[in-house]
Amino acid sequence: MAPRALDYESLNENVKKVQYAVRGELYLRASELQKEGKKIIFTNVGNPHALGQKPLTFPRQVVALCQAPFLLDDPNVGFLFPADAIAKAKHYLAMTTGGLGAYSDSRGMPGVRKEVADFIERRDGYPSDPELIFLTDGASKGVMQILNTIICGESDGVLVPVPQYPLYSAAISLFGGSLVPYYLEETANWGLDVNDLRQSVAQARYKGITVKAMVIINPGNPTGQCLSEANLREILRFCYQENLALLGDEVYQQNIYQDERPFISARKVLMGMGPPMSKEVQLVSFHTVSKGYWGECGQRGGYFEMTNIPPKTVDEIYKVASVSLSPNVPAQIFMGLMVNPLKPGDISYEQFIRESKGIIESLRRRARMMTDGFNSCKNVICNFTEGAMYSFPQIRLPPKAIEAAKKAGKVPDVFYCLKLLEATGISTVPGSGFGQKEGVFHLRTTILPAEEEMPEIMASFKKFNNEFMEQYDDRSGYSRL
Amino acid sequence: MAPRALDYESLNENVKKVQYAVRGELYLRASELQKEGKKIIFTNVGNPHALGQKPLTFPRQVVALCQAPFLLDDPNVGFLFPADAIAKAKHYLAMTTGGLGAYSDSRGMPGVRKEVADFIERRDGYPSDPELIFLTDGASKGVMQILNTIICGESDGVLVPVPQYPLYSAAISLFGGSLVPYYLEETANWGLDVNDLRQSVAQARYKGITVKAMVIINPGNPTGQCLSEANLREILRFCYQENLALLGDEVYQQNIYQDERPFISARKVLMGMGPPMSKEVQLVSFHTVSKGYWGECGQRGGYFEMTNIPPKTVDEIYKVASVSLSPNVPAQIFMGLMVNPLKPGDISYEQFIRESKGIIESLRRRARMMTDGFNSCKNVICNFTEGAMYSFPQIRLPPKAIEAAKKAGKVPDVFYCLKLLEATGISTVPGSGFGQKEGVFHLRTTILPAEEEMPEIMASFKKFNNEFMEQYDDRSGYSRL
Repeated sequence: MAPRALDYESLNENVKKVQYAVRGELYLRASELQKEGKKIIFTNVGNPHALGQKPLTFPRQVVALCQAPFLLDDPNVGFLFPADAIAKAKHYLAMTTGGLGAYSDSRGMPGVRKEVADFIERRDGYPSDPELIFLTDGASKGVMQILNTIICGESDGVLVPVPQYPLYSAAISLFGGSLVPYYLEETANWGLDVNDLRQSVAQARYKGITVKAMVIINPGNPTGQCLSEANLREILRFCYQENLALLGDEVYQQNIYQDERPFISARKVLMGMGPPMSKEVQLVSFHTVSKGYWGECGQRGGYFEMTNIPPKTVDEIYKVASVSLSPNVPAQIFMGLMVNPLKPGDISYEQFIRESKGIIESLRRRARMMTDGFNSCKNVICNFTEGAMYSFPQIRLPPKAIEAAKKAGKVPDVFYCLKLLEATGISTVPGSGFGQKEGVFHLRTTILPAEEEMPEIMASFKKFNNEFMEQYDDRSGYSRL
Repeated sequence: MAPRALDYESLNENVKKVQYAVRGELYLRASELQKEGKKIIFTNVGNPHALGQKPLTFPRQVVALCQAPFLLDDPNVGFLFPADAIAKAKHYLAMTTGGLGAYSDSRGMPGVRKEVADFIERRDGYPSDPELIFLTDGASKGVMQILNTIICGESDGVLVPVPQYPLYSAAISLFGGSLVPYYLEETANWGLDVNDLRQSVAQARYKGITVKAMVIINPGNPTGQCLSEANLREILRFCYQENLALLGDEVYQQNIYQDERPFISARKVLMGMGPPMSKEVQLVSFHTVSKGYWGECGQRGGYFEMTNIPPKTVDEIYKVASVSLSPNVPAQIFMGLMVNPLKPGDISYEQFIRESKGIIESLRRRARMMTDGFNSCKNVICNFTEGAMYSFPQIRLPPKAIEAAKKAGKVPDVFYCLKLLEATGISTVPGSGFGQKEGVFHLRTTILPAEEEMPEIMASFKKFNNEFMEQYDDRSGYSRL
């Protein structure tokens, strides 16, 4: 009998090609072990609440009231909710037509999009147009929609950093385009060299690929570096010269753990460069409620802002967004609350600031603890996490370990990470899932485990690593010096 | 200068081909008129809360508590929330790892998927496997994922009813496949003739198209018919003979307005047919929290259940779902609450039943009022809305009206619907947006306007229609007799 439509042989080849290591072999094995009763520390995905981070109180109060608007008429509401949460809930409900149970406009509620535009203007010093801001079910959905709009087929290329967050490689596979890698330089603190970019584009063109867009992740995932203004300016000039759209993944803009390189948006730099560039370079910037000190991943809220995108294209993007009717409405309200937060004098302001600061300062300490912890391990070196929520140590695997991995039918870093998981319960993602140079091995872990548990986790890692290194040490060379 | 990546000329042609009339020209014009201050009755999309339907109280209480879990420790919580809502909130929070702010598994929370499986077993009398149930951000997202998995290219065809809900045509265009239409017969109460199906498939094959799947919408959108068990059996046998996967859009399964043809799921019929069919026919069934008496559209919650889909394919679907990390968690809880509702004896049971019954009985009356209203109008005939939430009257346009439309550069039904909108504020969708036979014209409206407003709306429609018909009446033939 012929294969059926949903038999594996019949499936869309692009679907089969998709790889997504963040929830790949390691995650599946970790889930199995968890079922068997082993304690797993899920550091494979930036999911702060899953590791014990408490949600900010005020936004949860507001959204709870929006979910239960009948409480607003209840004389007892003041026993459980402060007056500013009640006022904010009324503010957002008034923006909806029918509350959280009604589809919004497919771009998201106009009122929230206006709040996003005001936030961008305050942040960057340049006005932003709410009509060019679309709310989405998390930033990933926005990235996928834009890539789907750009990619026409195999000969369309997108420049993606290596190492990269695998959303990009996955989406490019799914839409049948070509990933054009550019390498971040580990020894230069994961910096980006425009000459390498130029080479990557030249190589791709030689293969017949039209490079149409470039992705930057700033702060970097998995690498944690923050791009400097000078670097962003070079990138934008490069996009202008090479006629590339720039996709700016800026979801970690609130996650900064050093003072030398504060976050600066690609849009701000572009606007500051003036015409012709500020009028020509096409830029789409992404943000989310999942990261920062919010960490509201499960709500699935995001936005993208379009710069220099012609109205006819905006109409097309609107049309395709309409096919899924609307992004979920509760997360739109989280987005509004994030971009338009409490102000000094508001009843809940002090608590809000205390909670936010507590989270961000703890993350800063954890970034330091993790970097130092990794650097104290045998054959491990690690750049400091300047931003985002990941540590990305290089693991210098001895030849014997690489051999053992081959025997086990595993990629060497997968082999290492599986052993780590079995020994300690720490669930990481092998560096090969993000792309890395040939013969170099990494792992990615989030910096999200609770601060008080961090010393124990790092000790457990060190113990495993040093035993592993001893086991495979042949007193000759390592995978890379 | 060469066009830039996001200039219209450069965009993915499949994106450009997408059509989605539910939020198309009519909706955009209605939004404009609303901005200018005109009162618009948005009956273009099945969005009950937007037209005044109140949410069910109990599920909203539960989800509000889940959003604000700190209330569960508050001694005052009992002033605002009943004990069963508190217990249910604890029940669902215990299923999460980190509450609503944490990503769930990409397939949705195991606990909710188990509740869905139990619901399906109670409904159909056959066991269902939670591992084959994936939660999604609304049913549309699930439909899109499955079509993306099936469609490999232009030569892959999907049988879609005409008239159809344009999600299907839009998604097939977006993924670059071919829509193979089969016609529902208006004079047979929008019934489906398997001989016509066979002809559609034969024609498609003649053109070199491999027909891989068939879509049914039951109850029908926009047509409102309910498929009989005998008809479902014929369809399944046809799928078996022709080696087609069946996609069963059953989102309106709670929206039934007559007693002769209760809803019966495609899965139940398939299981009842026994082997080989029950073991062979691949079926994916879709459901949602957006319809029924819930109408929680804005929450974006849905699921799909897979039958006879091999594990390797399930793995592929899981992998692609993982790229967007997880469906939004609050809507997963709405799904749990919908499939596992209150039971007699629960504190909130009486209120829950009163509210649900109130909505469904009112919808039943409104279905009747609307059908009768349309049938009382000149040149309008309309089948009764047996299920779903739409009325789909045929409008017999006089030749002069068709001529006037051509002069105005409009498709005739679009012309009629625009005039209706301008005159009355009633925002409908022209039948051409769903597909209709050549020379036949319809419009789709939801039956959702508030019951007390319905007489006025139908009177306003009648006045407009009869004036329109008089204006263009040339006392000769109509568009179709």
